[in-house]
Amino acid sequence: MSLLPARGRMITLSALDGAGKSTQVQTVVERLRDYYGIEVVVTREPGGSPVAERLRELVLHGDVIDPVAEMMIFFAARQDHLAQVIRPALQAGRWVVCDRFVDCSWAYQVRGRGLARAEFEALEKMVLRGWRPDLTFLLDIEPVVAAARRRGRGAEADRFERQDLEFFGRVRQGYFERMVADPERFRVIDAAVAPGVVRKEVIAHLDEFVRSTLRETARLERAA
Amino acid sequence: MSLLPARGRMITLSALDGAGKSTQVQTVVERLRDYYGIEVVVTREPGGSPVAERLRELVLHGDVIDPVAEMMIFFAARQDHLAQVIRPALQAGRWVVCDRFVDCSWAYQVRGRGLARAEFEALEKMVLRGWRPDLTFLLDIEPVVAAARRRGRGAEADRFERQDLEFFGRVRQGYFERMVADPERFRVIDAAVAPGVVRKEVIAHLDEFVRSTLRETARLERAA
Repeated sequence: MSLLPARGRMITLSALDGAGKSTQVQTVVERLRDYYGIEVVVTREPGGSPVAERLRELVLHGDVIDPVAEMMIFFAARQDHLAQVIRPALQAGRWVVCDRFVDCSWAYQVRGRGLARAEFEALEKMVLRGWRPDLTFLLDIEPVVAAARRRGRGAEADRFERQDLEFFGRVRQGYFERMVADPERFRVIDAAVAPGVVRKEVIAHLDEFVRSTLRETARLERAA
Repeated sequence: MSLLPARGRMITLSALDGAGKSTQVQTVVERLRDYYGIEVVVTREPGGSPVAERLRELVLHGDVIDPVAEMMIFFAARQDHLAQVIRPALQAGRWVVCDRFVDCSWAYQVRGRGLARAEFEALEKMVLRGWRPDLTFLLDIEPVVAAARRRGRGAEADRFERQDLEFFGRVRQGYFERMVADPERFRVIDAAVAPGVVRKEVIAHLDEFVRSTLRETARLERAA
C-alpha cells in the first residue's frame, strides 16, 4: 500500500453556451469511470453544494443585484463548494469533474459584462489562494455558431443567455486571457465540428493527462 | 437654495440580543421624524434590500455553510444594501437608521465565533472602502442580563441566539474593539437600566448629534 496521501485530480470544462459542454462533461466522466475505473464526483458552478445551489438560483433568476455583490455571491458559492464538496473529494482520492469554474466568472462577468475586475482579483486570491484545477478543457466556438445552436435548442433562456454576439465575443476573449495566463492547464478543443469529433479530441487529451498522472503517481510510490 | 448636494446621515445601532435594540431603533426614528422633521429610511442588517433579505434567510436559517463563505455572503448582502438602499437615500438627503451594521459582523462572527478574521478585513475594505456610518449607538449590557431578558421574551431562538454566555462575552469585547478603533463615531449607552431611561440617554446623544449636524450644514451654506 502506498504511503502517499490519496489525492484526486480536478478537471473543469469551460465554454460559451451552445458549445456542447454538457455532452463533453459526460464524455470525461464516462471515460474516467468506465475506462480507467476512477471514482468521480461530477459537479457544477455556480452551485455544487446546497448553499451554492441556492445562491445560483438567487443570482441567475432573482432580483436586481449590485454587480460587486453579484461577484461576491459567485465567490461565496465557490468557497462553499470548494470547502464542502471539492476539497473533501480530492482528499479522499476521488477525481472531480466540474461544469464551469472560476474561468467562467472572469469570462462572463469581468470580460463579458465589464464588472468588478478589481473585486474578482481580490476574491480569487481569497477563495483559491493560488490553487487551480489540474486540467481545464476550453470548448472553443465562434459566437455566431454558438448562437445558432442555442436558438435550435429551444430551452428557456436565462438572464445571461439573452445577450448579444458582441457580448459572447468578449467572453471568448476572456477565456483566451485565462488560457494565456496559465497555458499548461488548458486544452483548447474546436467545438464547431460534429460532437463525435469533439468527443474524440476530448478523450485523446484526457487519456494523455490520465496516463501522465498515473505515471507520476507510480514514480512517487516507488520513491516513497 | 443651497448649492451643496443634499447629504443625509447614517445612524446604526449595535447590541447583544436582549439589550432592547429594536425599541431604541424606534426611539431614534421617531425623534428624527417627529421632532426634527427629517426624512428617515429605516433598514436592517443582515438584509435591507430584496437580495440581501434572501441572503439573510439563507445564512440565518439555511444549510450548513463554510465560515468564510458565510462571511462573504454577509458582505455581499451589505454591498447590495449599500448600493441599492443606503447610498441612494443618503444622496437624496434622507437619513438612514440601520438596525445592526458592519460592527455586528466583527463582534458576532470574528470575535464571537472566531471566524475568518483576515477575510473580514479584506471584505470590509472591498465593500466600505473606508466609509463609515456617521453615528453608532452601542447599547451595552452584561451578557448574563441580556440572556435573562432573551429567555423572558419567549421568541424562538435562531442559530446565533442559541449560544452561550461565554460567546456573548466575546461579542461584547468585539464591540468594544470597534469602538476603541473609531471612538468619535460611537455613543455607548447602558442598556441594563429601565427602557425609559435608555430612551432618554439615546435622545440626549441624538439631539446633540443632530444639532451639531444642523449647525455644520448652516455654516457650510453661509460659506457657499
